This record gives sequence, C-alpha cells and structure tokens, in this order.
Amino acid sequence: MVKEFVVTPWEVKGRIDYEKLVKEFGLNLIDDRLIKRLERYLGRNKFITRKIFFAHRDLGFILDEYEKGNKFYLYNGRGPSGNTHIGHLISFIFAKQLQDAFDVKYLIQLTDDEKFLFKENLKLEEVEKFTYENMLDIIALGFDPRKTRIISDLAYAKTMYREAIKVAKKLTFSTVKAVFGFTNETNVGSIFFTSMQAVPAFLESVKEKRNIPCLIPHGIDQDPHFRIARDILPKLGFYKPASIQCKIMPGLGKEGKMSSSEPSTCIFTTDAPDIVRKKVMNAFTGGRETAELQRKYGGNPDICSIYQYYYFLFEEDDQKIFELNEKCRKGEIICGECKKILAEKIEKFISEHQRKREKARDLVEKFLLKD
Amino acid sequence: MVKEFVVTPWEVKGRIDYEKLVKEFGLNLIDDRLIKRLERYLGRNKFITRKIFFAHRDLGFILDEYEKGNKFYLYNGRGPSGNTHIGHLISFIFAKQLQDAFDVKYLIQLTDDEKFLFKENLKLEEVEKFTYENMLDIIALGFDPRKTRIISDLAYAKTMYREAIKVAKKLTFSTVKAVFGFTNETNVGSIFFTSMQAVPAFLESVKEKRNIPCLIPHGIDQDPHFRIARDILPKLGFYKPASIQCKIMPGLGKEGKMSSSEPSTCIFTTDAPDIVRKKVMNAFTGGRETAELQRKYGGNPDICSIYQYYYFLFEEDDQKIFELNEKCRKGEIICGECKKILAEKIEKFISEHQRKREKARDLVEKFLLKD
Repeated sequence: MVKEFVVTPWEVKGRIDYEKLVKEFGLNLIDDRLIKRLERYLGRNKFITRKIFFAHRDLGFILDEYEKGNKFYLYNGRGPSGNTHIGHLISFIFAKQLQDAFDVKYLIQLTDDEKFLFKENLKLEEVEKFTYENMLDIIALGFDPRKTRIISDLAYAKTMYREAIKVAKKLTFSTVKAVFGFTNETNVGSIFFTSMQAVPAFLESVKEKRNIPCLIPHGIDQDPHFRIARDILPKLGFYKPASIQCKIMPGLGKEGKMSSSEPSTCIFTTDAPDIVRKKVMNAFTGGRETAELQRKYGGNPDICSIYQYYYFLFEEDDQKIFELNEKCRKGEIICGECKKILAEKIEKFISEHQRKREKARDLVEKFLLKD
Repeated sequence: MVKEFVVTPWEVKGRIDYEKLVKEFGLNLIDDRLIKRLERYLGRNKFITRKIFFAHRDLGFILDEYEKGNKFYLYNGRGPSGNTHIGHLISFIFAKQLQDAFDVKYLIQLTDDEKFLFKENLKLEEVEKFTYENMLDIIALGFDPRKTRIISDLAYAKTMYREAIKVAKKLTFSTVKAVFGFTNETNVGSIFFTSMQAVPAFLESVKEKRNIPCLIPHGIDQDPHFRIARDILPKLGFYKPASIQCKIMPGLGKEGKMSSSEPSTCIFTTDAPDIVRKKVMNAFTGGRETAELQRKYGGNPDICSIYQYYYFLFEEDDQKIFELNEKCRKGEIICGECKKILAEKIEKFISEHQRKREKARDLVEKFLLKD
C-alpha cells in the first residue's frame, strides 16, 4: 500500500517518504564526504549524523567559497501563524550552530504577510502578535545581535517590497502555478508572495554591494520557494542560494500527526509544565497494549512519537539514542518510564527557554530590522 | 469602417470612441443635472462644460454626502515612466480646482512600482528619477502641502504594502485576468500591482479611523483599476470610491498620435522654448494642402491636434473656443497663424511652469509621505 503524504510550504500531512521527496524536488543527499567536510567546522553534530538535516543544494559550493575566503551568510525563517512549537526551533538551533562554527551573519525572516494572505480567517493584527511572540522564541536561543537580524516582512516592507518586485518582474504566473499548484482562484497576494521570500537570499549582497553566497537551512517543505529563488537570482546578478534541508519533526499524534487545530499533538514553547507533562504522557507511542506484552515482545521506536522527540531534540548523545532504540525493541524500557524521562527533559528545557524568552523582550529592538 | 482603438491602463492607441468606451466600462455620463450641482461649487469650469471630464461613477453620492457635511477626499496619480507632458497635467489641474472649491484633502500616487513592473527595459533607478521629476511638475501647480500629499509606492511601501495585501487577499487571478487581459505569462508583480493602486482610495479612512468618501478624477484609461477597487473596498468596510473620468488629450501626431518613443508628438514640461515652438509648428492639423484652399474651403478642427491643445488647455474662454472652431471651418484663420498663437501660449505657460518647477525642489519634503 502506498502511503499518501503531502509536503508543500503550506501543508505537511501523512507519513513522509523522504527518499521520494528528494527525487521529486531534485535535491542531493548529504553524502559522507560532505559530512566530513562539514564536521571539520561543526564538529560532530547530531542533526547531521542522524540525517535530520539530510539533503542540500550547492553545499559544496558554499564550503569551497568559504575555504577561498569568501564567507557566506545564513538565511531562514518562519511563518508566524501561531505560537512556536518545539519542532519549529530545529532550523534556528542548527543555524546557530552553523553561525558559531563559521562566524557568519544570519538573516531570519518572519513572513507575516504570507500567513495573512494564505490563511483565510487570520487577521493582520493576529499575525503581528504572533510575529512578536515568535521573535521572542528565536531571540531566546541566544543569538548575537551584532551578527543576526530579524525581518518582519510587514515591518520591513519598504526595503523588502523594493527588492521583491525585482524578483517578481522575472517570474510568471505559469511558474508559480506549476511550482505551488496555484489556480485562477488563488488570490493575487499569494501569487506575488514568493517574491518576498526570495529577498533575504540576496539582501545581504544588495546591502554590502557585492555578491555574497547565501546558505538556507530550512524544513524541506519550504524548498519550492527556494527553487524559484535559485532560478531567478542569477538573472539579477546574484549567486543561486545554497540550501540544506531538514526533515519535519513529527507531532505527538498517531503517525506523527501534528496540527495547530489539535494543540495536544505538539508542545508549544509557551506551554505550562503541567500541560507539557500531560501532552507527553498522552502521546502516541510504539508500545504494546500492556507493559507485560511490551517486556516480552518489545516496542517499535520507528512509529513512536516519544522516540522522535528524543531523536530530534532531547538526546544529544548518538550512542545513547542508539541504546534507547535497542532497549525499546528488546522490551527493556516501557513507555511510561520513557515518557516520564522525556517529560522531565522537556519541562526543564521549556522552563529555561521561557526564562530566556522573557529576557528577550528587551532585545527585540536590537534584532528587528527597521526601514 | 470601424476605427480600431485601444484604451487600457498601459496603452492608449487610435481614435477613441468615448461613447463605446463608456458603455464597455459601464460608466455614467455627467448629465446636465450633475453639471448644475457641480457648478454650484466649482463655478463654470471648462473641463466640465467641454465634456473633457465627462463620465463618472457615484458623483451624486459624493455631492449628497458633502451636502450632509460628510466631506470626501481626492485621489489620483500618475505612472512615472518618463517626463511629464502637458496632457498629464489635466487631472492634477482639475483636482486642484475641485480641492479649492470643496476645501478637501488630496492624495497623489506615483506608481513607480507599476512602471518598473510593466516596462520591460525600465530600471528601478530610472523610475525613481522620473518619480522625482514628476513630483516637481505636480508641486509646481501650486498645491497646499497642508491638504495635499504625494505617495511614491516605493518610498511609502511600508504603509502601502500592508494595506495592499488586504486588497490582494480578496482578489483572484481570474478577476485581474478578466479585467486587464493578463495571461499565464504575465509577471507576478504586475498581477499583484492593482492592489497597490487601490490603497489611496481608502488610506485616508485607515488613517483617520473612520469611513471617508473618496473621489478619483482620472484619465479614462485607468478605470479598470478603480472598477476593481470598487469591487473590493466594501468587503474591507470602506465606501466604493467614486470617480470622474476625463478624455485623453491627443498628441501632435496624425490622428492624435502621441508616443513617448516619438517625443515630437507631445510637449514635455521640461522642453526648451525653441523645442516647443518646433513641435507646435510641425504638428498635424486639420488644414488644407495650401493656404489658398483653406481660405476657400476651411479647415477641420475635429481632426486637428492644434485645436485640441486649445480645447483641452490653452483657451479658457468657452465663447472664444467656439469662435476659433467657426473661424477655422470658414477658412478665416489658417494653420500657420493658429500654430503661432498656440506656440506663444504654450511657451509662456511652460516658462512659468519651469520657474515654479525649480522652486518645487525645496518643497518635495513637505509633500512626500514617509513611512
């Protein structure tokens, strides 16, 4: 039976077949040679060794240029349509590791215009509230404001629109129709929008008045936007932006289901400790019906949302994650115990994050780009 | 034989059949009753009596509201793809007469983004130069900066884009395709653009936080944009903008041809006196092959570009324009003489305009809206 899945910038659904997606999108896998090259700078990195960040375009070019003394800059972002959940942090955490390792600039884009345009019932004022809240989560990760800047498309529209129309002039409806599956009933703002998402991929070059390579670490669902950016930017005299794609962290529901309309399927950075514990304890696992059966036949970490949380974020040590997998399969650990340990780890992470998040309020002005 | 003509926001070509256009666009003619109502405020106005401004939407509503104490504001503008020619001034001159008569605010939009997006070879820097030059021409007409503001879409993009996406969200590709004749090969910036042109029609209401009627005096070629604005604005809680349409002042070429690629077909506000004289003396007229034939059989002012210049701008007195028409038909005035008088009038106007235009440089900051 073929498992159905959907991965677009606006919808991620079903059990994702990443192999199929890589072929469909025309991505390259990060091979052992590239992993070694990256490790020279990054050291051993769990997002790389675990193939969470697993695919790329032109990563070799970025490293070649870097080694010639031509530094790249980083760019990624997020659509502020709601509170940040823990999975959203992955691209920012990895970008910070890259930033620290290579000592490079980093632009973070919050596409408030996109969320307003694509979400029927979302009001501009609501999106702006989420932009602010999401900014706090990003700043809480500890970025250096001298090297890191946050863009709100709306708050920085004077700069953004001017550059976006350069992209838009080279981009036809045919192309966005083919890439995003738009129809004649799509609104004209949504049709235009990808031009705004292309801008940070060359904005640093515009500002510095020289061509600077750009590397975009992002969730694989955003790739269609950057395929377009790669097509257009050379026509404007810039490098094609390079990119490195990560898998989408599954939610706590069955088959990794995660949905904003079902808040129990993901943990938000703003959740209270008792909510976190409750969500973890109620999560879908790969366990057996009873503890007895599980001790006898073992569990299945492959389909377990709890295991995925350890794998993506809450177990740094590769050896230990391997051991957890083994223990689960052999029935040496049962779900209740496994959940309890995870709940404690997440609670600890979140309470620390929330403390930093409050401090971030005073730093917003330092990060936010202004026209 | 049916005369072919084209009237779109981006192309005006051929001998325009205004009756046909009014039907096609679904406009209303300004009838005698409305002329009388207008004259109560405006006095006798040549643009109205000569039916240069001849069609409208909801002009009665604007006057009703005004008489109830609910003042409207004025909005129109220009696409800065080149220097201003004399015909471009008509909408601004008439708007000033309305502004003075009704004592209302006035927003002038320079659609620099549009011109960049629609003109293949036009660079952003060139458009911005024209934006500045066109602003000087507008300011030179003597507006009061306390009641009049100029918008450059690019320079005011932070405000404009935020409002434009509210329009864009309600507007599908189907609609802009039908209204403007766009195809799948149209660029996504052009597809989005009309959303920006809709903004000044409700911006004053946004700023004042109450619903204020808007009246747009504009060249009939721009009507498709405002049909869309009238469709969308009520969905955002604003009045449908009212409008009053003028005929397009013909150029100096045969059949009123006027083209930026043929500078001899129109007089720019920046032309030197000898250039003005040359253009007028070489203009296409309704005259006979020889002066003798003309004295005998008379000329034809209907097809004469010189007569149109008098009619639209350079003869204020309705009685005198009637007499000029008569004299021409009877052969009592021949083209050389008629051209010479016009050349003097235009030279006088232009040298005065250029003097005010230089002074306008110091006033730009007072008029230009800033984010």
